[in-house]
Amino acid sequence: MDYQIFALGDVVLQRGATLRNARLAYQTYGRLNAEKNNVIVYPTWYSGQHVDNEWLIGEGMALDPSKYFIIVPNMLGNGLSSSPSNTPAPYDRARFPQVTLYDNVRLQHRLLTELWGIERIKLVVGWSMGAQQTNQWGCLYPEMVERIAPFCGSAKTAPHNIVFLEGVKAALTSDAAWHGGWYDKPPTTGLRAVGRVYAGWGLSQPFYMQELWRSLGYSSLEDFLVAYWEGFFLPKDANNLLAMLWSWQHGDISDNPVFQGNFKQALAAIKARALVMPGEMDLYFPAADNAWEVAQMPNAVCRPIPGVWGHFAGGGANPVDTQFIDDQLKELLAYE
Amino acid sequence: MDYQIFALGDVVLQRGATLRNARLAYQTYGRLNAEKNNVIVYPTWYSGQHVDNEWLIGEGMALDPSKYFIIVPNMLGNGLSSSPSNTPAPYDRARFPQVTLYDNVRLQHRLLTELWGIERIKLVVGWSMGAQQTNQWGCLYPEMVERIAPFCGSAKTAPHNIVFLEGVKAALTSDAAWHGGWYDKPPTTGLRAVGRVYAGWGLSQPFYMQELWRSLGYSSLEDFLVAYWEGFFLPKDANNLLAMLWSWQHGDISDNPVFQGNFKQALAAIKARALVMPGEMDLYFPAADNAWEVAQMPNAVCRPIPGVWGHFAGGGANPVDTQFIDDQLKELLAYE
Repeated sequence: MDYQIFALGDVVLQRGATLRNARLAYQTYGRLNAEKNNVIVYPTWYSGQHVDNEWLIGEGMALDPSKYFIIVPNMLGNGLSSSPSNTPAPYDRARFPQVTLYDNVRLQHRLLTELWGIERIKLVVGWSMGAQQTNQWGCLYPEMVERIAPFCGSAKTAPHNIVFLEGVKAALTSDAAWHGGWYDKPPTTGLRAVGRVYAGWGLSQPFYMQELWRSLGYSSLEDFLVAYWEGFFLPKDANNLLAMLWSWQHGDISDNPVFQGNFKQALAAIKARALVMPGEMDLYFPAADNAWEVAQMPNAVCRPIPGVWGHFAGGGANPVDTQFIDDQLKELLAYE
Repeated sequence: MDYQIFALGDVVLQRGATLRNARLAYQTYGRLNAEKNNVIVYPTWYSGQHVDNEWLIGEGMALDPSKYFIIVPNMLGNGLSSSPSNTPAPYDRARFPQVTLYDNVRLQHRLLTELWGIERIKLVVGWSMGAQQTNQWGCLYPEMVERIAPFCGSAKTAPHNIVFLEGVKAALTSDAAWHGGWYDKPPTTGLRAVGRVYAGWGLSQPFYMQELWRSLGYSSLEDFLVAYWEGFFLPKDANNLLAMLWSWQHGDISDNPVFQGNFKQALAAIKARALVMPGEMDLYFPAADNAWEVAQMPNAVCRPIPGVWGHFAGGGANPVDTQFIDDQLKELLAYE
């Protein structure tokens, strides 16, 4: 087992369900120093797990485990933390409860404070839904979080993003084998359809025009659709995907008892030095939305990741983008 | 019957099938003058029929039936011209043959020349797949076509556009009720899923952020998804949608015996005065692609339709965009 489990006990979720014997799976990189002032939190993204974050961690990089104690908490629903696929009846599978951004971050906060007694965080950083959790950290725990670096994400899921996800959901649930979530065998037709719907959104128009999938080792456009996109979603659990999709569609850092829906107030509460990095051509987390958010935050800069990799600019697949992100993170970590 | 049928006889299609007793449905507006020099051709778009083009036709508008003889040919596969839904066995339903852009335009050319003896066309104009047919007209019949005005389309379907359509196709065909095209009852789950997938592509991110669906009379985002998007695709025949989708994915004005895949040569062959109008924020026919095409055409200008209506800038739903298009067309028609 290449990760640890933090037993959360019985957790009352924001929307009312009690998740009994809830678990938060996490992995750490590096060592917590005696002063407990070298902590970085790096939440996961839609369907990603801690290992999928490791491309941004390494000696000599900004997220250097020889300097920092890097904690990667797995998002609820991702198959390692409490999820439809691993929760016993009666909250199993299609009955897994609705989990919010607020739930995820509160539970991560418990991990840090209860397990290690951490009081200060040097940096919270994350991609996509990980960026959303990063923003949630920033406004919920402003005295604790010194810096945030959300990339290719937002502080509130935009209506168009919700619509894009409706298409993903419809493609999956059109497969009768999904059976309302009570499948015994995976709804493979629907999972493949998710891959095909997602393919157009994940990368930009010029990415495809320039056939940059070749740089990833695919031999044709159709090969990229099958070998990468269908291959990516086929092994995922459909109910897990739908649970995380619900969390994403309802992602809003102000939708909680603290901010009660006041989005501007939540953004203004992010006191941390914030480095916000949209993908210049991201189709579902548009750079323009981040520019607006940054204008509401007291100590933030917006630095778009240039180029044509769209949302995947933040996915670790393109070395140039990874270099850009790493350089920016180094600058942010040097900022006092 | 608010349209006419031109009996094409037995048509040998580009990909080899013979479509027996093929039919081209069309409607005309205005009268052909004695000199036969007042002809406008205005092909239909993906799943649209001639009535869906009428918003751009009217007295006092550029497409003025009191001045021009406006011919709207229905694209093959759209349910009125030869289509999976109206072709008798054995080429019915799932067995309907592959129809290319070249097929469509050659058959439209037959309509004009055989039925009316038309030798000159003042303008070919069209939206989306109608724009693709417009470009095909321009390069196949350069001595005949004086002006073209393709809007929110392209001369060759871009790889990203092909991928977007893969998502649409996957959503539809994931419904087991589709049954490989041999359904007796419509695959309604799949058709609704098509609507949801399409919804994110048809309009832009800021369109949804600004809730501009309100201007169309919808009461909530979900109401827009159900009442407009699902409602739009539910009555369509699934095989018709898939047949037109195939034509679209293979849309390339140079993929024919005349140009043999030489795309630049096909663009250079468009001698007509060309007014190319992309939607500034069109997500699947990006304005940048049109700018490149225009640079290859000898007598063309690119005039993006400003604003946030994305592909639907050319759909007739937004009066400001319609005004822009109409103004531009008036200028083009005045051009000698």
